[in-house]
Amino acid sequence: MARPIILFSQQWSDLPLEDLAQKAAEWGYQGLELACGGDHFEVQRARAEPGDGQEKRGLLARADLSLPVLSCHRVGQAVCDPIDGRHQELVPDYVWGDGEPAGVRQRAVEEIMAATQAAQELGASVISGFTGSPLWSYVAGYPGPSSAVIAEGFQNFARQWNPILDVCRDCGVKFAAEIHPGQIAFDLYTAEMALDALGGREEFGFTLDCSHFHWQGIDPVEFVRRFPDRIYHVHVKDAALTVNGRSSLLNSYFPHGDPRRGWDFRAPGRGGIDWESLIRALHEIGYQGPLSVEWKDSRMNREQGAEEACKFVKRLDFEPAGRSMPL
Amino acid sequence: MARPIILFSQQWSDLPLEDLAQKAAEWGYQGLELACGGDHFEVQRARAEPGDGQEKRGLLARADLSLPVLSCHRVGQAVCDPIDGRHQELVPDYVWGDGEPAGVRQRAVEEIMAATQAAQELGASVISGFTGSPLWSYVAGYPGPSSAVIAEGFQNFARQWNPILDVCRDCGVKFAAEIHPGQIAFDLYTAEMALDALGGREEFGFTLDCSHFHWQGIDPVEFVRRFPDRIYHVHVKDAALTVNGRSSLLNSYFPHGDPRRGWDFRAPGRGGIDWESLIRALHEIGYQGPLSVEWKDSRMNREQGAEEACKFVKRLDFEPAGRSMPL
Amino acid sequence: MARPIILFSQQWSDLPLEDLAQKAAEWGYQGLELACGGDHFEVQRARAEPGDGQEKRGLLARADLSLPVLSCHRVGQAVCDPIDGRHQELVPDYVWGDGEPAGVRQRAVEEIMAATQAAQELGASVISGFTGSPLWSYVAGYPGPSSAVIAEGFQNFARQWNPILDVCRDCGVKFAAEIHPGQIAFDLYTAEMALDALGGREEFGFTLDCSHFHWQGIDPVEFVRRFPDRIYHVHVKDAALTVNGRSSLLNSYFPHGDPRRGWDFRAPGRGGIDWESLIRALHEIGYQGPLSVEWKDSRMNREQGAEEACKFVKRLDFEPAGRSMPL
Amino acid sequence: MARPIILFSQQWSDLPLEDLAQKAAEWGYQGLELACGGDHFEVQRARAEPGDGQEKRGLLARADLSLPVLSCHRVGQAVCDPIDGRHQELVPDYVWGDGEPAGVRQRAVEEIMAATQAAQELGASVISGFTGSPLWSYVAGYPGPSSAVIAEGFQNFARQWNPILDVCRDCGVKFAAEIHPGQIAFDLYTAEMALDALGGREEFGFTLDCSHFHWQGIDPVEFVRRFPDRIYHVHVKDAALTVNGRSSLLNSYFPHGDPRRGWDFRAPGRGGIDWESLIRALHEIGYQGPLSVEWKDSRMNREQGAEEACKFVKRLDFEPAGRSMPL
Amino acid sequence: MARPIILFSQQWSDLPLEDLAQKAAEWGYQGLELACGGDHFEVQRARAEPGDGQEKRGLLARADLSLPVLSCHRVGQAVCDPIDGRHQELVPDYVWGDGEPAGVRQRAVEEIMAATQAAQELGASVISGFTGSPLWSYVAGYPGPSSAVIAEGFQNFARQWNPILDVCRDCGVKFAAEIHPGQIAFDLYTAEMALDALGGREEFGFTLDCSHFHWQGIDPVEFVRRFPDRIYHVHVKDAALTVNGRSSLLNSYFPHGDPRRGWDFRAPGRGGIDWESLIRALHEIGYQGPLSVEWKDSRMNREQGAEEACKFVKRLDFEPAGRSMPL
Amino acid sequence: MARPIILFSQQWSDLPLEDLAQKAAEWGYQGLELACGGDHFEVQRARAEPGDGQEKRGLLARADLSLPVLSCHRVGQAVCDPIDGRHQELVPDYVWGDGEPAGVRQRAVEEIMAATQAAQELGASVISGFTGSPLWSYVAGYPGPSSAVIAEGFQNFARQWNPILDVCRDCGVKFAAEIHPGQIAFDLYTAEMALDALGGREEFGFTLDCSHFHWQGIDPVEFVRRFPDRIYHVHVKDAALTVNGRSSLLNSYFPHGDPRRGWDFRAPGRGGIDWESLIRALHEIGYQGPLSVEWKDSRMNREQGAEEACKFVKRLDFEPAGRSMPL
Repeated sequence: MARPIILFSQQWSDLPLEDLAQKAAEWGYQGLELACGGDHFEVQRARAEPGDGQEKRGLLARADLSLPVLSCHRVGQAVCDPIDGRHQELVPDYVWGDGEPAGVRQRAVEEIMAATQAAQELGASVISGFTGSPLWSYVAGYPGPSSAVIAEGFQNFARQWNPILDVCRDCGVKFAAEIHPGQIAFDLYTAEMALDALGGREEFGFTLDCSHFHWQGIDPVEFVRRFPDRIYHVHVKDAALTVNGRSSLLNSYFPHGDPRRGWDFRAPGRGGIDWESLIRALHEIGYQGPLSVEWKDSRMNREQGAEEACKFVKRLDFEPAGRSMPL
Repeated sequence: MARPIILFSQQWSDLPLEDLAQKAAEWGYQGLELACGGDHFEVQRARAEPGDGQEKRGLLARADLSLPVLSCHRVGQAVCDPIDGRHQELVPDYVWGDGEPAGVRQRAVEEIMAATQAAQELGASVISGFTGSPLWSYVAGYPGPSSAVIAEGFQNFARQWNPILDVCRDCGVKFAAEIHPGQIAFDLYTAEMALDALGGREEFGFTLDCSHFHWQGIDPVEFVRRFPDRIYHVHVKDAALTVNGRSSLLNSYFPHGDPRRGWDFRAPGRGGIDWESLIRALHEIGYQGPLSVEWKDSRMNREQGAEEACKFVKRLDFEPAGRSMPL
Repeated sequence: MARPIILFSQQWSDLPLEDLAQKAAEWGYQGLELACGGDHFEVQRARAEPGDGQEKRGLLARADLSLPVLSCHRVGQAVCDPIDGRHQELVPDYVWGDGEPAGVRQRAVEEIMAATQAAQELGASVISGFTGSPLWSYVAGYPGPSSAVIAEGFQNFARQWNPILDVCRDCGVKFAAEIHPGQIAFDLYTAEMALDALGGREEFGFTLDCSHFHWQGIDPVEFVRRFPDRIYHVHVKDAALTVNGRSSLLNSYFPHGDPRRGWDFRAPGRGGIDWESLIRALHEIGYQGPLSVEWKDSRMNREQGAEEACKFVKRLDFEPAGRSMPL
Repeated sequence: MARPIILFSQQWSDLPLEDLAQKAAEWGYQGLELACGGDHFEVQRARAEPGDGQEKRGLLARADLSLPVLSCHRVGQAVCDPIDGRHQELVPDYVWGDGEPAGVRQRAVEEIMAATQAAQELGASVISGFTGSPLWSYVAGYPGPSSAVIAEGFQNFARQWNPILDVCRDCGVKFAAEIHPGQIAFDLYTAEMALDALGGREEFGFTLDCSHFHWQGIDPVEFVRRFPDRIYHVHVKDAALTVNGRSSLLNSYFPHGDPRRGWDFRAPGRGGIDWESLIRALHEIGYQGPLSVEWKDSRMNREQGAEEACKFVKRLDFEPAGRSMPL
Repeated sequence: MARPIILFSQQWSDLPLEDLAQKAAEWGYQGLELACGGDHFEVQRARAEPGDGQEKRGLLARADLSLPVLSCHRVGQAVCDPIDGRHQELVPDYVWGDGEPAGVRQRAVEEIMAATQAAQELGASVISGFTGSPLWSYVAGYPGPSSAVIAEGFQNFARQWNPILDVCRDCGVKFAAEIHPGQIAFDLYTAEMALDALGGREEFGFTLDCSHFHWQGIDPVEFVRRFPDRIYHVHVKDAALTVNGRSSLLNSYFPHGDPRRGWDFRAPGRGGIDWESLIRALHEIGYQGPLSVEWKDSRMNREQGAEEACKFVKRLDFEPAGRSMPL
Repeated sequence: MARPIILFSQQWSDLPLEDLAQKAAEWGYQGLELACGGDHFEVQRARAEPGDGQEKRGLLARADLSLPVLSCHRVGQAVCDPIDGRHQELVPDYVWGDGEPAGVRQRAVEEIMAATQAAQELGASVISGFTGSPLWSYVAGYPGPSSAVIAEGFQNFARQWNPILDVCRDCGVKFAAEIHPGQIAFDLYTAEMALDALGGREEFGFTLDCSHFHWQGIDPVEFVRRFPDRIYHVHVKDAALTVNGRSSLLNSYFPHGDPRRGWDFRAPGRGGIDWESLIRALHEIGYQGPLSVEWKDSRMNREQGAEEACKFVKRLDFEPAGRSMPL
């Protein structure tokens, strides 16, 4: 289909953007999902130096790459999380500041607002990202949260994100919250609850990444059908279940690639996701946005993998039927 | 087998202990796993009033019930958790005090020490309970904890629990930590890590409750075989997977009984656990302790259920083979 | 639970009603679902002889059996089917008459109206039955029907049944259409369509018989949750899949019991239906009606089977939880 | 293998045959299964205009396409179906005539006889097609047909088809009845019954299309082994089960592509059929005929799909082993 | 059903027969399958002491036990096996003699002939047993046997067994060869080959023991349908698959009960066999013989187990339908 | 990855080595696993004619093929098997000699010693092969072997193989015993036992061929993780389960390709093995040796198959990740 196949830059932040752009183009990609942070795209610098955005666009254009989506996953995590030491590594120094939680959260909000304006200037119509969650520590643990605690968590989420979404509305940019453990919305029903908490405002939709659904037992096709007009972005990442009686779906505390995990990410097409049914569901709802390869596979060489993934998605994304045919 | 079939009193704390004892005996139980907290058994009062323990023993003896295990699940949660509002409901007022976290944790430690001494006096050789966890908020979320954070979490756990285990050693009582989400050990590998953090000391072992293994994809038989000499207590509780494409194994934020959950507890024998294989594994390791029915099934009348459960466990716990037979 | 366990009389029409009543009571049943037709209950005679209904009630009362449901499955089939030779065996002679299709259909309508009035007199609050279907010959065949043909089929259904439902409304009796192949509604979506065709009128709901869902791949729990206020009656009948690479789910033209079938009915508890999940779904929606054993198992002695089935349903239908319990 | 890979023209009847031939050749096909009806090949005109067949052969030859099979699926449906409005769209006007059932059936018979003679002239050795069925409305419905009704149905089938098969015999052409719902033979056992009804005459065999077996639970390998010398033609079409607890295998009344269906057709290799086992079974019986792609996938662009399908079948149809090799 | 439920005495040979008889009766059994060898029934002594058989019959009759089947499994193993050290433990001393293979085989033949005559005198109409196999060492190993070796193996089998079957014919006793690994017939196809090798003579049929089919992947229902008139005896023994990624279905060299095995025997109803389908298949073919519990479960107390097994089989063996019932 | 993809020559022994080398190179292979025996490489001649090895190396070098592994599967079978007629076909005439078992075994030992020296000269660092087994006839049969018999079997194995392994040590060549039915080690636990019997000496490791694990129910990933430093060689061969209720996993006595078998070999990628998980496990342990295609598929043309297999393995063997990447 005419959907652009793009590469998410987060996993390549160790390469200069120019090098990445050249490689991505050679591998067959048509654009990037550019991750804020680090050298690739520093929001504050972009705000300070008016030509910076233009320069990035030029750099990508020279490699014949589009820039339909800007990612602010990392800083988004700080918007409504309880802040602890882990967040220092996720956000720029000027967002972390003295690390006092309320201040970090506030500066994270401002950073995403700035990123939204940058997206507008860069011509990206979607910001993808994490939201953080005031409730995550309660999930699956003991004791469960009371309904009052849950309600307060969603109000907190709405308080933090509504001002950002106002900026999105003003900039004509949509926010695509990734459905992901650790975020306010991590499954179908929490996605419903998040949307409700925001009064269903149109600036807010979802980034669909099936790899996070797989081990939770959720069918991404059901998700697509439940939110046909809220799929604002799609990540292509595979996952494999590796439960063997001893490993747990919660993965103990093991990093990716550890054989004692109960599931792990895999290069697209090398895991257990039913891509054929997913692409048909995306055809069904008329999704027109990009398919963004988030390349994570701890056992495979990433350059070989990224090239293979681009080819995989091209084969996958067949041309939908235009009209009825004779039976 | 000769293993006593007992009833965990936690789910019956709204009944006077005398009434519960009478009912349990009528339903066929041979003993109780008595939960500390509330009227059934208040540790502080037991310490203050020397005759209290004796009185409980007498009360149970009149109903022909033994008391092999004392439970301190609730207060145990506060030993190494980050303390928040939920803990106020879990612990006695005198443990909560002013709610200042370090103080709560310290008083929780002392409460379990006192419970251990009470167990000795009551003739219970095992304390079952939760441990809490400084790491739970990192499980399955984003970003994952660094290995340094994990190491520090287990050291924290050991610092908090070693003094308690010293008391256990002195009292001749074993602590059976329940493998349970929200605790330092929630699966096979974290059980290994917890044991290692304590230098493998003998006072520390596990309460096996298969219902927490089921949705994580762990085979309880593998667990039993991995820790043949550390199964200090067994809960009998069933669970059923109810994933249907929309529900998640993480259960959104829904309470038990909500049809949108991806798994739920069930009365023993009415869920998906392979009890036949479990009882054979317990025979294999020579487990001699009680089988304790923790009755939780949000759809079923608990009295009918508790009686049925006792019969179920009696049928389940067949007599093991004494010696080889002719082939 | 307090739901009455009753026996559907259709499969026992070769026995005098008095004998059946005595046997049913001995087997433990608390009532009958009385099938119209034959000696058990002939609608026309009941209309003609005012005392007949009273006599039936007395006969059942003497055996301590209630009569909550009257069945008019057979004559219902003729209401909107294309009439052919098979219907002659299904309906009383006075309904068949000369066999001219329009007349048969009209007299079938009148027969059910009369049965409804009889139900009222007998104290039965529900009529269970088939509806027939003008569309069945199109299901799964070639070529499929156009949407116009389908629309016309449902209008035809509504035209035939609305006058009957008017009588139901007047008599305070509900009609419970069995979801069943060969009827206008044979699955979840056709049940939706049937309800829509009738404007959702309250007199019309469903008889749930899981054995017809099983081989179609439908989960009865989904059905119960989709129509929580339209389950007016429940049949208890089991089914087993017997596909072996050669048999088909469509069963060729083989009668029950033929080993070349791909599925067959089984006595309750001896097939593949997940009764545990079903009864929980019925608890969930607060279904209060009877559980009616429709005993069909071509390999098993029906008397032994009917007694066993009654015991099975008693064990199955556990007491639901009255209120929350301590956790 | 040397089996020709051909394209069934039915789904392309909106294109001029010349255009289709050119495209098919470009996509890699080696021949066509030409469907009677419409512009592609009108039987009556072919009979009337002696050069017509020659012209078609020439047209295909110029595109380097063979013509091993002629299809008369649509008109075949009318041979022993009860005729209703749907058949008007299936058959040429001159077969429909005044629509009086007996006449339509008779003219359908004559049309297939004529098609058989045309096949001979075109050099096609096989006619593929539907048979219709006097029994379909009884399949899976209520009440089931008596054995007498079934016997009469098969006699009816034989009466209608024997004269056609006589013409086949005279022309040296075989009739390959597609095993398909809505036909007299729709599974393994009904295929046996159909063959028996015809006395096993050699002119009659089967078109194997696994997509119709898949949702019925039949293993096509068992079918191939049961009728090793009666597989006269093979369609390549895939299917996927999409049951999700709500959808039914009977598909309500939904058209292809509707997400509420319990199964649907898919492009070859994109569904659930075990093609590897099928091709091995075809090697096993020594099937030498064509592999005919019947391209149906309501979500996919048919031109991209047809090209992909040809490549898929080429990879699939590996060269069988010629002789034993050293072990 | 009226089928007698009996207990196979082999696993109880350490008990005096009188004690076993008393226990078996108390547990609810209606008869024994008496194993030749040891004190229970020594064939040679029975031949030498004419009253011995009469005495056994009396002993069993006093316990109200029938004796429908005599077992000569152990000595049967020596009839066409290559003899090695293992056989010395299987056969009586007088059969083993000097252990020279040809002599052992010959004396094993004579022992079974004598046992057949003893069966006649005891009123047992069936001898159950093993056959041994000249081919077993070739099964699943490397290199496979040539077809000539296989043919010679079956001829050898026929040469050894035909004289025994002549005696069976003369005595009116049938031989029921147990389908079992290590025997000439261990699955469906080898059962066909064995029957062919004997020219299908009626004295030879099978003992069906599903526990040996389970791990081979064979469906016992298919076996029953393949040999409807050759099921001469049925053992009731369950089995469970315990493959976990490390264990093998071939079980290394581990004895029963070792947790490293990939399958093991289980008490009836505690393993994975589909008894419901089996009993229906036995109804289907009209099997009238006994159901003989061969009690083997290395983890369970055999006395508790044998009593439970008898109850299990009674519930299982429901009364078959006598005639059609109204639909 | 840089692992060489090679072809096992055993299945091509009917071709002159020069022809095979040319074909293998054309198909894309980078080397051969050369099977001793026949024209390809006769050990005795190589010993007798000093230039023979050099000539083979030259011949392969001209086709740009390496020779990392020499195979002595066939003669290995005779080292500790009970010798019977089948072995005559497996070994060279000079090893068979007069066929007296002890002599055959001794000459087989000497042949492998000579092959080891030849391997050293040829530059092959690994000898792959079978071991034979004194215990195979006891596997899965009746009665099982006593533990004494098993112990003696492994001692016998060690006695026969230790002298060979001494030569391996002296030559710097490793012996890679194929885990295979019929050998001393046929699964994970017997591999442990074999290693133990040899005192874990380093010259002895394993050839992993997943096709033999598949039908035994063993997960090759578990095997790789259990023996991370003993995987000395890897065969690439696929297998498919074809159980259908009638076929057995033990395969009766049917040759490959017979449709009555319960499993069979397949060309790589056309069976049921999870190659993706296997290659990741090999990456995990850092296996650097060759991937050797043992091409066996009784239904497929071997030349087409061998070329396809080489491509399959190239795609499979992706480049492993060199270092951590940004998350």
